[in-house]
Amino acid sequence: MTTSSTHNQTSWAQRILDGDRRSLAQVISLLENQEQEGFNILKELYPHTGQAHIIGLTGPPGAGKSSLVDRMIQEIRTRGHKVAVVAVDPTSPFTGGAILGDRIRMQRWASDPGVYIRSMGTRGSLGGLAQAVYATVQLLDAAGYPYVLVETVGVGQSEVDIVQVADTVVVVSVPGLGDDVQVSKAGIMEIGDIFAVNKADLPGSQRVIIELESMLDLGSHGNWRPPVIPTVATTNQGVSQLVTAIQDHYAFLKENNLLMEKRLTRQKESVLQRLTERIRKDITELWTKEHGSQIWQDLAAKRIDPYTLEEQLYLNWKGGNTVDKKD
Amino acid sequence: MTTSSTHNQTSWAQRILDGDRRSLAQVISLLENQEQEGFNILKELYPHTGQAHIIGLTGPPGAGKSSLVDRMIQEIRTRGHKVAVVAVDPTSPFTGGAILGDRIRMQRWASDPGVYIRSMGTRGSLGGLAQAVYATVQLLDAAGYPYVLVETVGVGQSEVDIVQVADTVVVVSVPGLGDDVQVSKAGIMEIGDIFAVNKADLPGSQRVIIELESMLDLGSHGNWRPPVIPTVATTNQGVSQLVTAIQDHYAFLKENNLLMEKRLTRQKESVLQRLTERIRKDITELWTKEHGSQIWQDLAAKRIDPYTLEEQLYLNWKGGNTVDKKD
Repeated sequence: MTTSSTHNQTSWAQRILDGDRRSLAQVISLLENQEQEGFNILKELYPHTGQAHIIGLTGPPGAGKSSLVDRMIQEIRTRGHKVAVVAVDPTSPFTGGAILGDRIRMQRWASDPGVYIRSMGTRGSLGGLAQAVYATVQLLDAAGYPYVLVETVGVGQSEVDIVQVADTVVVVSVPGLGDDVQVSKAGIMEIGDIFAVNKADLPGSQRVIIELESMLDLGSHGNWRPPVIPTVATTNQGVSQLVTAIQDHYAFLKENNLLMEKRLTRQKESVLQRLTERIRKDITELWTKEHGSQIWQDLAAKRIDPYTLEEQLYLNWKGGNTVDKKD
Repeated sequence: MTTSSTHNQTSWAQRILDGDRRSLAQVISLLENQEQEGFNILKELYPHTGQAHIIGLTGPPGAGKSSLVDRMIQEIRTRGHKVAVVAVDPTSPFTGGAILGDRIRMQRWASDPGVYIRSMGTRGSLGGLAQAVYATVQLLDAAGYPYVLVETVGVGQSEVDIVQVADTVVVVSVPGLGDDVQVSKAGIMEIGDIFAVNKADLPGSQRVIIELESMLDLGSHGNWRPPVIPTVATTNQGVSQLVTAIQDHYAFLKENNLLMEKRLTRQKESVLQRLTERIRKDITELWTKEHGSQIWQDLAAKRIDPYTLEEQLYLNWKGGNTVDKKD
């Protein structure tokens, strides 16, 4: 590491703390591209993290999440707080604010220095995206945004990821998306701390609310019974209640000493994920160097089956493995 | 390993080859639970794999995938072939055929020995699910099903996974799911070998078809231009064309020597994933044994930042790492 780059990092971290939005955008790009420099900056900023309330918001395509988030920004601003939004689309290769709806939102809030919006899509692996989102959230936390909203299109992995990132998870449902959605609710019920039923002015919304309530009645939730809140993003109905419920959940987590626990689990998972990813890369490179394509050719020709190969590679790794050795 | 268990495995593999459906169901459960015994059976069966055409089918909730798959089963049966279906719901904790729509389907085909349907949901990690699906597909291949259909609710990770499993990917779109869906198409365009526009009798379907076609015009596809096929599952419209397109794509892959390449990439990825998962478990266990919760407590108390911790653990691993050593 050169002195000049150390100097740059120091000033970058400082600029983030000073609220320089341009530096913020640049560091997020570094994190998005998994550049080591980005993580070095984050390392410096680490003592400044842990202040923000991280809110995850997920739901199926067409649930009106973007509009709802827009109203939530408005409500949080009205209550006098700064807010940052990370809009994640795991299915989109676009990054840096190029996602359609977000561009419109960004323009709307462009003149408000208390709002920061950033879009992130998949460039490489989804695991990489999750790590980048997690790092970005920590950066925004350090940058002094007391509310950081992470919005994802949610079916499948993205929901699992959002749980890892967020203190409070809002699951957005909507009437009229067919039976498939109802089926997949089973998985969603477990991750939601708050359920918003958006487009609550549409027919069928009452049925969705009743279904959610009865599914919640069946589950066990410790001392927090997730509220079900009807919202209409277009008319701002229910948005204030939603933001209040989010604040209530945060207070609940703090009062019951659950916040630190949640965050520590997150940190552990994140460290392990990055580490595993790195070791995996190492192993792949080493094999390629030593065996060339021979083992893969053996596999292709069925001279070896993948399970025996895995076993051999594992034993080979384990034979030399001294993870628990200190020196 | 005891002689008796070796004996059991041998006979299990043989029973799978003999087409015993009960054994098939039991071995899939072993694979689903990541039991080593399941993989041992698969190891034995490995020489019998590589015959099936693996077809992935993905699309948003509400696209009518289940009905479409039902019609595809019918069409494939009419053409005189056996077919197996793995219905994956990454958002559902249910397994073993408990997913609503699938139970109905299963009953419908229960009396036809040429059809095998199995549902799989998430038990543990999503990575674990992907591995279980991959293994199940190989098992069904060995069991002599020339067509194996993998159906997933698709937004996000599940789509990426389906690409890893399938020779041919069918992306199902549907009119009227709002703008979010159109946006997320950007990611979907890259993985589809065939595009089905289901519910093509609904208003707006023509617009979806035109949009898909024009997005495909913009992309590069080598020598295979993905066809866009309007379907109406309820009336069986377009289903025959869809199955023919699937067969055409398979012929294309074979003729251009792309099938082996695709499958080898899949095998490599699968071996690496299982290996990484195993090493990750090892590392976690070793740390827990040696450090107890100390390092995590240090992290919680911010005595160390996660990036420095990761670096230390990595260097510790690397110091003892002899993956490339042979003895």
